[in-house]
Amino acid sequence: MASKSSTTILCIFLLFLCLSGSSAFPNWWRKKQYQPCKRLVLYFHDIIYNGKNAKNATAAIIGEPAGANKLILAGQNHFGNLVAFDDPITIDNNLHSPPVGRAQGFYLYDRKDIFTAWVAFTFVLNTTDYQGTINFAGADPLMEKTRDISVIGGTGDFFMARGVATLMTDAFEGEVYFRLQVDIKLYECW
Amino acid sequence: MASKSSTTILCIFLLFLCLSGSSAFPNWWRKKQYQPCKRLVLYFHDIIYNGKNAKNATAAIIGEPAGANKLILAGQNHFGNLVAFDDPITIDNNLHSPPVGRAQGFYLYDRKDIFTAWVAFTFVLNTTDYQGTINFAGADPLMEKTRDISVIGGTGDFFMARGVATLMTDAFEGEVYFRLQVDIKLYECW
Amino acid sequence: MASKSSTTILCIFLLFLCLSGSSAFPNWWRKKQYQPCKRLVLYFHDIIYNGKNAKNATAAIIGEPAGANKLILAGQNHFGNLVAFDDPITIDNNLHSPPVGRAQGFYLYDRKDIFTAWVAFTFVLNTTDYQGTINFAGADPLMEKTRDISVIGGTGDFFMARGVATLMTDAFEGEVYFRLQVDIKLYECW
Repeated sequence: MASKSSTTILCIFLLFLCLSGSSAFPNWWRKKQYQPCKRLVLYFHDIIYNGKNAKNATAAIIGEPAGANKLILAGQNHFGNLVAFDDPITIDNNLHSPPVGRAQGFYLYDRKDIFTAWVAFTFVLNTTDYQGTINFAGADPLMEKTRDISVIGGTGDFFMARGVATLMTDAFEGEVYFRLQVDIKLYECW
Repeated sequence: MASKSSTTILCIFLLFLCLSGSSAFPNWWRKKQYQPCKRLVLYFHDIIYNGKNAKNATAAIIGEPAGANKLILAGQNHFGNLVAFDDPITIDNNLHSPPVGRAQGFYLYDRKDIFTAWVAFTFVLNTTDYQGTINFAGADPLMEKTRDISVIGGTGDFFMARGVATLMTDAFEGEVYFRLQVDIKLYECW
Repeated sequence: MASKSSTTILCIFLLFLCLSGSSAFPNWWRKKQYQPCKRLVLYFHDIIYNGKNAKNATAAIIGEPAGANKLILAGQNHFGNLVAFDDPITIDNNLHSPPVGRAQGFYLYDRKDIFTAWVAFTFVLNTTDYQGTINFAGADPLMEKTRDISVIGGTGDFFMARGVATLMTDAFEGEVYFRLQVDIKLYECW
């Protein structure tokens, strides 16, 4: 009998473990487990082209609403400006640190009454620690201190990654330069 | 012997449960489980800027093909028009209902011989029930009654969400206003 | 005793199986399982509008940096050119094979010092084998022989798909035509 009871307890324990990996299990259990399986904090630096900084610029306006032009961000909180970028990524907040990769993609100012952008871009990393890409997309309400966007995929060392990235504007100078801190928290790692 | 047999049966049952959560298990078993873990049906309203409706417009043409302009959608089924939007989201189909959030992103008319768009946007929800964002992307063949796009991620109450959203054009008025019903079915909820 | 030991072994084996499906299990075990659950190799064909090929063109420049126009790709490695496309997909590398679907979306040249693009598009497939859509996004450094982007979602026969797609430029003719091979490897199939 002792043997049978202990077996039953073991089996119930195993059943519990099985269920904890399935969607049938209640959320309160799963919520406890949300530690990132991988985390990186990186910075990227955006210098927008204004007609006078061709050499240093890393970004350019490529779409704008009626009545606007491509050398000055549009009125109404830049609503309708589409900006393509190829920005250096650094591990600290110094623009002149050796880049560990490039942030490539676009941002789109998409609101008239407040600064808000929609972003989609890729971190192309090429360091001794990491080789691969991380793909991001989401809304970036710039005026909030921190904003969460989605990590929608990855390749190489970030194969099949998913997660959340928290953006924080670390610095900006007028409308020409800004620096974003990106706190990348991956919750699916393969 | 009785003890051993019943243990074996229990173990086989557990094995079955384990496998049902892994990719080794046949699809017919897994297909049966496709009930959304979360579902929302919402509406959003798009009023495109045409040069005369600056006050009400929620969207604007910001890219167009050669020969077109930014106040009139282009010929050839608007092929090449890129539209940025910041549209109110409502829980019913009334434009004047109190918005529960904003749909922010863009649509891109991408076909010459029929109306078809490619969309990427975020629902930024801020209600008593939900706080967070849902990110979408996919092809939107407007002339079909319903179109499926992907939910590619989420934040806040939609942390790490994935799923499918079914778009339906609920109403449109000429080329200035349309209303989409979005039936969001999440199949991965954390 | 024999009964108890064999039960214990079975239970440990089951525990092992349970864990192998959870994030607690070491990566070396999970890495071994990375065989695609679905794989497709397809081609798509892009003919960019240059002012003289309206009938055949499948793509058009719809955004460009200051000083550029919509009929010629911009200098500096086309930096800032945004191109909308609706390209035929074929199962072999012949432009004139019967298309099995359309590749719809955009590419964005996003670097000044080398050809690099950021892409987001959907394969809309409509064949006897497959009905559904596959959504892609990622960086496409064109000068490398192969480039990996993410499969960020799918619908229909590709419901909830995730994976990696390897792009390879199979042919190009000047700046008007190119053909991409897309090797789609899905690692999450529902």
